[in-house]
Amino acid sequence: MFFQLKTVEDILDIIGGLDGPADETRVSLTDALDRVLAGDVISPEALPGFARSSMDGFAVRARDTFGATEGLPALLEISGEVAMGAEPDRGIAPGQAARIATGGMLPEGADAVVMVEYSQALDERTVEVSRAVSPLENVIGPEDDVRKGEHVLPRGTRLRPRELGVLAGLGLDGVAVVRRPVIAVISTGDEIVPVDRTPRPGQVRDINSHTLSAFCTRLGAEPLGLGLVPDRFDRLRERLLHGLERADSVWISGGSSVGTRDLTVQVLESIDGMEILAHGVSISPGKPTILARRGRCTVWGLPGHAASALVVAEILLGPFLRRITGERGEPLPPHGSVEAELSRNIESAPGRDDFIRVRLHRKEGRLVAEPLFGKSGLISPLARADGLLRVDRFTEGLYQGARVTVRLFGA
Amino acid sequence: MFFQLKTVEDILDIIGGLDGPADETRVSLTDALDRVLAGDVISPEALPGFARSSMDGFAVRARDTFGATEGLPALLEISGEVAMGAEPDRGIAPGQAARIATGGMLPEGADAVVMVEYSQALDERTVEVSRAVSPLENVIGPEDDVRKGEHVLPRGTRLRPRELGVLAGLGLDGVAVVRRPVIAVISTGDEIVPVDRTPRPGQVRDINSHTLSAFCTRLGAEPLGLGLVPDRFDRLRERLLHGLERADSVWISGGSSVGTRDLTVQVLESIDGMEILAHGVSISPGKPTILARRGRCTVWGLPGHAASALVVAEILLGPFLRRITGERGEPLPPHGSVEAELSRNIESAPGRDDFIRVRLHRKEGRLVAEPLFGKSGLISPLARADGLLRVDRFTEGLYQGARVTVRLFGA
Repeated sequence: MFFQLKTVEDILDIIGGLDGPADETRVSLTDALDRVLAGDVISPEALPGFARSSMDGFAVRARDTFGATEGLPALLEISGEVAMGAEPDRGIAPGQAARIATGGMLPEGADAVVMVEYSQALDERTVEVSRAVSPLENVIGPEDDVRKGEHVLPRGTRLRPRELGVLAGLGLDGVAVVRRPVIAVISTGDEIVPVDRTPRPGQVRDINSHTLSAFCTRLGAEPLGLGLVPDRFDRLRERLLHGLERADSVWISGGSSVGTRDLTVQVLESIDGMEILAHGVSISPGKPTILARRGRCTVWGLPGHAASALVVAEILLGPFLRRITGERGEPLPPHGSVEAELSRNIESAPGRDDFIRVRLHRKEGRLVAEPLFGKSGLISPLARADGLLRVDRFTEGLYQGARVTVRLFGA
Repeated sequence: MFFQLKTVEDILDIIGGLDGPADETRVSLTDALDRVLAGDVISPEALPGFARSSMDGFAVRARDTFGATEGLPALLEISGEVAMGAEPDRGIAPGQAARIATGGMLPEGADAVVMVEYSQALDERTVEVSRAVSPLENVIGPEDDVRKGEHVLPRGTRLRPRELGVLAGLGLDGVAVVRRPVIAVISTGDEIVPVDRTPRPGQVRDINSHTLSAFCTRLGAEPLGLGLVPDRFDRLRERLLHGLERADSVWISGGSSVGTRDLTVQVLESIDGMEILAHGVSISPGKPTILARRGRCTVWGLPGHAASALVVAEILLGPFLRRITGERGEPLPPHGSVEAELSRNIESAPGRDDFIRVRLHRKEGRLVAEPLFGKSGLISPLARADGLLRVDRFTEGLYQGARVTVRLFGA
């Protein structure tokens, strides 16, 4: 019944209320890429920890340069050169300057750096400064970059190359991250054969095991392939119980034929402690989607058609994986969505959200979204689409030329 | 000298002319995610290979339904049911219909499917059809999805979950992909210490080895960490030669102090057959970038500051990696860029392209880009930025409130 279906927003609300990730694990920096921080990172020290020049030039006492101009330069005595990576072996006295390179440590007594452009060494011992500097000019103070005890990265941050750079700078070689959730992937259907088997007439190969496992990998989860199961109550139940024991979530795709449409639900209902949270979602494709839970383990029933299963993955399983991998915060901009012009009229049934695959191309400089139609169940359009266009349940259609937002595929 | 600097476009042109990837390797489907196809994929067979129902209902001869309406339904004899995954054991004769589920194989004699909504079984043997179907209606023909010999995926395609689905559907369990290029990563600088060492005053930890290696991994290359080298001609030369032997490209970051600024160039010039393609790029940050080549191996000299090196990575090394990983075609939409409103005036020197890190946030529903300034060399702003704003070399600045395009970080 249509009115019993949940909306996309209902499901996203349910996902938001699911248990987050439980366990954490420690990884080294070299293994931390794309992992999610299990706790806030607090700086154990100040950075850079010493006063550092941000320019090539001369370390000076600022007051010695006050009033210096091109016409009336200040003359300073060169006391020596600061070696990179070492504490200067002597300070500078009033009237002195020390050669320093970008990143070099300021000698005792110096409080500013005159850029090389405004300083000219007259001989080995004397430099002419043609511009005044204020105290701390061209200097990075000991705590300017990071203060000791500062919260540098919040829990739930996914570690990209930039965040790894911050951790490296702080010397945090080991970091606590969320354990990768394990997703058990099961394909069902009497007509499905493994990819390496030649299908007989009436049979097709298992696509969902591959696409859904790859989807998990892409989003930071660990797929656990539980293979193919025929449309039989006892077989599916046994395999599901196996998944519930070993995984944080079980994804069952298939069961689209008349007799087996409700097999997944029957199996779920037969398991003690299983709570069915949603049975049917008002989206197209993806209407037969099921969401259930036992303890901390979530079970998803997905459409059998590869294209439909991937749409549900983009719309619902992506947010679900972000929830259970502990990633915080929606990416602020609508990451990976673009505005485009619709190439033709689209009709849509009210009461459900249609997700239409579109291909993007440029036409006279404008980005055009071309809906890809065709009988559902085809696999070849899978790779042709660039993203999804949502026609929501309050809209009966869109006209050619309309400005639409296309959500680019995230995986 | 500024006029000798190359522009971003010059460098991208040079990258476009570099040798593409040479070797290919064969991987199984489970290892193929994010790999790049080394050749076109041509379908070895037609899909689905048999006539398949795209709906639940009854397989019929279309002509037996012609003229059928709700008021004057056609009465057909039920000849049996098509089992999923099997060839029907008998055909249908004129006036007959067979129960069929979505994905079932059409029996001999049937050429269309009446949806279950328009068919009502009166008893075990008789079904009433209340709507006419045309031949092939609700049927996926044997070649409707993929024709035998069809080019389904072009060379240079990066395999995402969707493309893996197409390969799985075709039974292509092994696929030829481009070998992952190996990138040797070297950090130089007398002041740099490894992450696990406590820096003495004047020293800082090695960030670039971590950020650049992670950047490689993210973009499908294989980083080969060659560690730290002090600013010494012979040591850098020896490490570079080591990299040239083992890698497809060598990335050297550092050498930012006065005395060592040109060390990388001097080392490159001392190597037989090395051709320097660019020495200095009119971008900020990133001006001291160097590009050289010996045979098929490309050498990049990068700024020492972590933030500057990552900007050069986003702008130049990303396209470079796409070139040598064999990925074809720019992603059609400006993947991962968003329009935003500038939060304040920006000044910019003409003659160079400034890449300014910005943080994005929402303000009264509008997306606002807030430039992150600060002394170069700081690491803490690394993780705060969401993307880069380009102020090109013909623009002297941008006003607060301007509509700008922010390129989101891709790695």
